[in-house]
Amino acid sequence: MSDQLIIFDTTLRDGEQSPGASMTRDEKLRIARQLERLKVDVIEAGFAASSNGDFEAVQAIANAVKDSTVCSLSRANDRDIARAAEALKGAERARIHTFIATSALHMEKKLRMTPEQVLEQAKQSVRFARNLCGDIEFSPEDGYRSDVDFLCRVLEAVIAEGATTINVPDTVGYAVPELYGNFIRTLRERVPNSDKAIWSVHCHNDLGMAVANSLAGVKIGGARQIECTINGLGERAGNCSLEEVVMAVKTRRDYFGLSLGIDTQHIVAASRMVSQTTGFVVQPNKAVVGANAFAHASGIHQDGVLKARDTYEIMRAEDVGWSANKIVLGKLSGRNAFKQRLQDLGVQLDSEAEVNTAFTRFKELADRKSEIFDEDILALVSDESVTSEREQYGFVSLAQHSETGEQPRARIVFTVDGREVKGESVGNGPVDASLKAIESHVKSGAEMVLYSVNAISGSTESQGEVTVRLQNSGRVVNGVGADPDIVVASAKAYLSALNKLHSKADRVAAQG
Amino acid sequence: MSDQLIIFDTTLRDGEQSPGASMTRDEKLRIARQLERLKVDVIEAGFAASSNGDFEAVQAIANAVKDSTVCSLSRANDRDIARAAEALKGAERARIHTFIATSALHMEKKLRMTPEQVLEQAKQSVRFARNLCGDIEFSPEDGYRSDVDFLCRVLEAVIAEGATTINVPDTVGYAVPELYGNFIRTLRERVPNSDKAIWSVHCHNDLGMAVANSLAGVKIGGARQIECTINGLGERAGNCSLEEVVMAVKTRRDYFGLSLGIDTQHIVAASRMVSQTTGFVVQPNKAVVGANAFAHASGIHQDGVLKARDTYEIMRAEDVGWSANKIVLGKLSGRNAFKQRLQDLGVQLDSEAEVNTAFTRFKELADRKSEIFDEDILALVSDESVTSEREQYGFVSLAQHSETGEQPRARIVFTVDGREVKGESVGNGPVDASLKAIESHVKSGAEMVLYSVNAISGSTESQGEVTVRLQNSGRVVNGVGADPDIVVASAKAYLSALNKLHSKADRVAAQG
Repeated sequence: MSDQLIIFDTTLRDGEQSPGASMTRDEKLRIARQLERLKVDVIEAGFAASSNGDFEAVQAIANAVKDSTVCSLSRANDRDIARAAEALKGAERARIHTFIATSALHMEKKLRMTPEQVLEQAKQSVRFARNLCGDIEFSPEDGYRSDVDFLCRVLEAVIAEGATTINVPDTVGYAVPELYGNFIRTLRERVPNSDKAIWSVHCHNDLGMAVANSLAGVKIGGARQIECTINGLGERAGNCSLEEVVMAVKTRRDYFGLSLGIDTQHIVAASRMVSQTTGFVVQPNKAVVGANAFAHASGIHQDGVLKARDTYEIMRAEDVGWSANKIVLGKLSGRNAFKQRLQDLGVQLDSEAEVNTAFTRFKELADRKSEIFDEDILALVSDESVTSEREQYGFVSLAQHSETGEQPRARIVFTVDGREVKGESVGNGPVDASLKAIESHVKSGAEMVLYSVNAISGSTESQGEVTVRLQNSGRVVNGVGADPDIVVASAKAYLSALNKLHSKADRVAAQG
Repeated sequence: MSDQLIIFDTTLRDGEQSPGASMTRDEKLRIARQLERLKVDVIEAGFAASSNGDFEAVQAIANAVKDSTVCSLSRANDRDIARAAEALKGAERARIHTFIATSALHMEKKLRMTPEQVLEQAKQSVRFARNLCGDIEFSPEDGYRSDVDFLCRVLEAVIAEGATTINVPDTVGYAVPELYGNFIRTLRERVPNSDKAIWSVHCHNDLGMAVANSLAGVKIGGARQIECTINGLGERAGNCSLEEVVMAVKTRRDYFGLSLGIDTQHIVAASRMVSQTTGFVVQPNKAVVGANAFAHASGIHQDGVLKARDTYEIMRAEDVGWSANKIVLGKLSGRNAFKQRLQDLGVQLDSEAEVNTAFTRFKELADRKSEIFDEDILALVSDESVTSEREQYGFVSLAQHSETGEQPRARIVFTVDGREVKGESVGNGPVDASLKAIESHVKSGAEMVLYSVNAISGSTESQGEVTVRLQNSGRVVNGVGADPDIVVASAKAYLSALNKLHSKADRVAAQG
């Protein structure tokens, strides 16, 4: 068996399905480029048939990414599969990933189909897909809770029809490593043509064991593809974390004996990009990418680390892209230094015009703030990427005042389709007053479901980055805004969310 | 073998060792009470010999907690052990937990001792401890990377001297489940008197497998105690998460076949309390306690959940304390309703005077905000708990103003030892200006290493809760402040951090 482990990233599909993590086409494209830089083998770019927006995102990624295979999810029906194939047309290497549920519970309650009908539909769909694309992945949804005899029949049949990858999802995050590993092994032993496909694992983290389950599927079960997401993003407790599973395979090569194509130095930048785009914070004690993952507090530990690095360290922070020394830019830094820093941070802007806009913002910021840290630059670019979407609303200026004993009050000027309007309001605090001042004019009726301030760096001299999540008629969007003034950052984030609310279409979403 | 699994919580010891997670005595006491409510079997309350503050915290917890065993860590020397025993004097059930490193690397580089010296010191220490306390836990630090022959000799010797629990730490988070489980089994098989002790596992999450490793230690290895922390708090990537490991054992009882004493309904309240106290956020996609852990976004999933709950749910949100319907309090709510709500939220205030102070604050808040959510109450009480420490600095009033094109400016009035002082400053934003206004008078010279705003609820009408982490001469403290005005919350948090900086003594910390 090959010792090459395939890393299949589904941040843009399963990850994006988390409540509130939905992304625009441009955001997805930017993350896809970062995943390519990471040298991910397969990028699941979305679920093309679920909405026009998702179709366009898959298409844009298929056209832009050259080094990774680009994949679209599709239900097991001809329409979905044809849509996926169409979106993937421009891809250097394309994969269609089709799925249907095989557990008794899902077939009966969700699909309302008999097992024979499910088997037939799975076969037909793979046969149809095989004529549109040479690389076909099939997933039996809720596979881990499926009857093993029935599952073997389905998997044998779809391999015979031409499925090249068989993925066995633990859709509800119910597995434990030993049982999941044995389950994959049993399937591989019992399906007669199992050697004709690469086997894949897809685990959810509801019981905190997604990484260990995935690795048991590989070690015990003989799978050679792991499906995972940056920061473990995904529905409920999320998916297997790319950064954890990759570093486990690398750090314990003595045990796993597997090779990986991943360029781990881009992990931290990818983690930040996904966190900033979705507004999903990474907790400080998150493995590999958390702020404390490589920090040692206890006196005894520090002493140990000084005496011999490996007394307490099994990985090196540099290997996953934590830079030991941050280069600080300032007022006098030129365009080249700025561009170089963007490159080092793994940020790729799409055109020289975008670099120019970002550089102008950088100079504006440098006028107000003496030292510019990497976090400031990432925030600035992330803010930039958001506001470069077709803007209906734009920030112009804000004045706010709060004083103990009085009601906080804000006055804002912003543009609606290029025309300046003013809003004024009081509120419970200056942020609340500012957002109410916007609403006094816009009257969006949107409900705010999240307001979060991301700590960009330790100091309050830094820019504050605010994420606002709005919900309206079933649509959920995130807006991000950055500014040294937290009230201004909040207003920008709110306007950015309103812009997205206007440009986003409804859509159906997918299997987990 | 017993099927009873002992849950040993070390949030207050190993968890508190995370950089920036240090807590005051009062905060530790409040969390210990919540752990007792959770029915944790053993609470590791601290490391008594490490500082006077830690001694007092262990002592206070030993005196207050009745239903859980209270434990103090100590190095393997008579002085540390005597200090631990003294701090534990008031405990209903006490345990001394002593440790010494046994891996070649740690013995040579950190301890600079020969294996024979380490063996001798381990024996002597357990013998000494055994005369002070009937319940002795011994940990060979970095046990998982120790020579197995040597480790067996040490463990046999300490059991012979009277150790009643043997804990085998994977100090650096290097283990994988199969190997760690087999390691524990080997030790138990080879140590002749292994049946005289309960075996325990202590895993770190550097490779994302702490939960699976702990459970392999139990399932394959036969351990019957798991050491863990709320939210997986702990050095670097943290420890095994209590909430995840407990829910895995409960949800997969079919596989593990173990009984637990934990009252899982208090899990979410414990998670919030620890997060608010330390300022360590819980990411939305964290298993069990993350905001999204029980949320379903995708259309297909929602449909599935409506049709049959267990298509996508393996646990019930209510079972871990997520309340489906939040009771909202308001202006007209009385003291009893407030007190009842506190009780339901698992908050216990130490005296009627504290309840009264909290209720006064509640009424003040209700005057400014029409609906009071659970999160507001928790923030209010958490703020209360912080400011009830001996205060050197107290907030009086704040006025601030920012306007596009001008420099943000703040004017603050606060007390220093009861005397009112004023500060005024400009800054990069209104928060920065306010904190500089405080510093213009205090001149603490402290460095701010973290500024974080915790999302209390979706809306900006809610209170904002701010955590400020300051560092000065090697001491790191957190201050927390809550207010509907985020600038005021920031100023309160800063003053609270300054108060702690003044009251905290230096101390040594411990093993991981």
